[in-house]
Amino acid sequence: MSQGTTETHVETREPLHYLSKNEAVAMELELLREYHFGPQQLTEIWGHACACAIAKAYPLRHLVKRQPTILVICGPGDNGCVGLACARHLRIFDYTPTVYYPKRSQQSFQQDLTVQCEKMDIPFLSYLPTEVQLINDAYNLVVDGIMGVQTGFQDARDPFAGILLTLKTISIPIVSLDIPSGWDVEAANTDGISPAVLISLLAPKKCAAGFQGKHFLAGRFLPYDLQKKYELNMPKYPGTECIIELTSI
Amino acid sequence: MSQGTTETHVETREPLHYLSKNEAVAMELELLREYHFGPQQLTEIWGHACACAIAKAYPLRHLVKRQPTILVICGPGDNGCVGLACARHLRIFDYTPTVYYPKRSQQSFQQDLTVQCEKMDIPFLSYLPTEVQLINDAYNLVVDGIMGVQTGFQDARDPFAGILLTLKTISIPIVSLDIPSGWDVEAANTDGISPAVLISLLAPKKCAAGFQGKHFLAGRFLPYDLQKKYELNMPKYPGTECIIELTSI
Repeated sequence: MSQGTTETHVETREPLHYLSKNEAVAMELELLREYHFGPQQLTEIWGHACACAIAKAYPLRHLVKRQPTILVICGPGDNGCVGLACARHLRIFDYTPTVYYPKRSQQSFQQDLTVQCEKMDIPFLSYLPTEVQLINDAYNLVVDGIMGVQTGFQDARDPFAGILLTLKTISIPIVSLDIPSGWDVEAANTDGISPAVLISLLAPKKCAAGFQGKHFLAGRFLPYDLQKKYELNMPKYPGTECIIELTSI
Repeated sequence: MSQGTTETHVETREPLHYLSKNEAVAMELELLREYHFGPQQLTEIWGHACACAIAKAYPLRHLVKRQPTILVICGPGDNGCVGLACARHLRIFDYTPTVYYPKRSQQSFQQDLTVQCEKMDIPFLSYLPTEVQLINDAYNLVVDGIMGVQTGFQDARDPFAGILLTLKTISIPIVSLDIPSGWDVEAANTDGISPAVLISLLAPKKCAAGFQGKHFLAGRFLPYDLQKKYELNMPKYPGTECIIELTSI
């Protein structure tokens, strides 16, 4: 362990294991049922780690626009929850996030995450502009927290089908949380959105195997026994960093 | 914001506000009731930040003993919960924590935190050795997660009265979480334990005003409106750091 360094760019010796959809679902269930992790805990850890990865990929001082604006699009499920927590931590890191959360869940935990953002003065859009140029002009980047492991392309009903079309045509970079929306968990959608950055939660899924952009891993809390059980061959996170950038794996 | 730096040693311009007990209790209640933060979220944020502060104060490569052993003593309330989460993150940071948690709560959240530690192979002591030398020999340091804002010295019944006596006589350093056990929230107990490191959660309390050891603040998520309302004059956390070392304030 190289304590005190900020270097997050390493190579692992053993090849990383890319999870199938079944493995990813099983591992998350095991975390909840066997290890007694709570959804609040996991969402908080992931939301914070995703904000750290975004700050690493797009430092405040290197943003294209004068205002550090970021549009965070949140889906109705777990991935959207991580997006909400991520937006809150981005605000704490001095970015100016705006949230678009079109299908709000009625579950109290998701409502709590929404209140936390609203009380931090993070604005919520009531609709996504259909004019792509408005998005390109207003934001430095878009965070895609629409779909995760549990929700696939078949769930891309309106308004999400329309959002995906918009994301395919914008020119500002997209940061996808866990699974780029519209992709299958096990295969990239070459006709789909093309994120510049992918942040894998827990462990990378098969769809990330050939990913050419910046790829971060945010899953440092994962118990060692689970890492062994699923033969993840996780890279070693440096110091107390909660993210690691994967490269040439 | 100085993105990308690891420097956590800064001076603030305005004097920090040290909270009274009433202010500290009111602010935490406001976080829970008005901002809808959940206990799981707060515990996770604080436990992680405390582990980061310990790794900063006692880096793995500078420990006195060959094994990176740390004894984490957890009380029955919220402070003990933070201790349990801190132990788990220390384990992830490659330390070897052992937990002593003599009065286990029956609440499901606290039981969950215990299961998470147990499943990470963190050993739990069934009693604290009365021979102080055994503790000095076995561990590099002790984390004091016994009492917080809500539990004062009057609650120091057995086994905690005995534990405090032990902590007064050990020679290895003590890291106290939020309130050094046996101290009043608003005044240091000069006849009490003498921690080498104090990690204030949210904001420093009055008892920390004259603290001479290493003093960390772990409260970065605190919404700006609350910081203003309580006139905290919080220092600026660098980059994406979740802790900051306070000095000359």
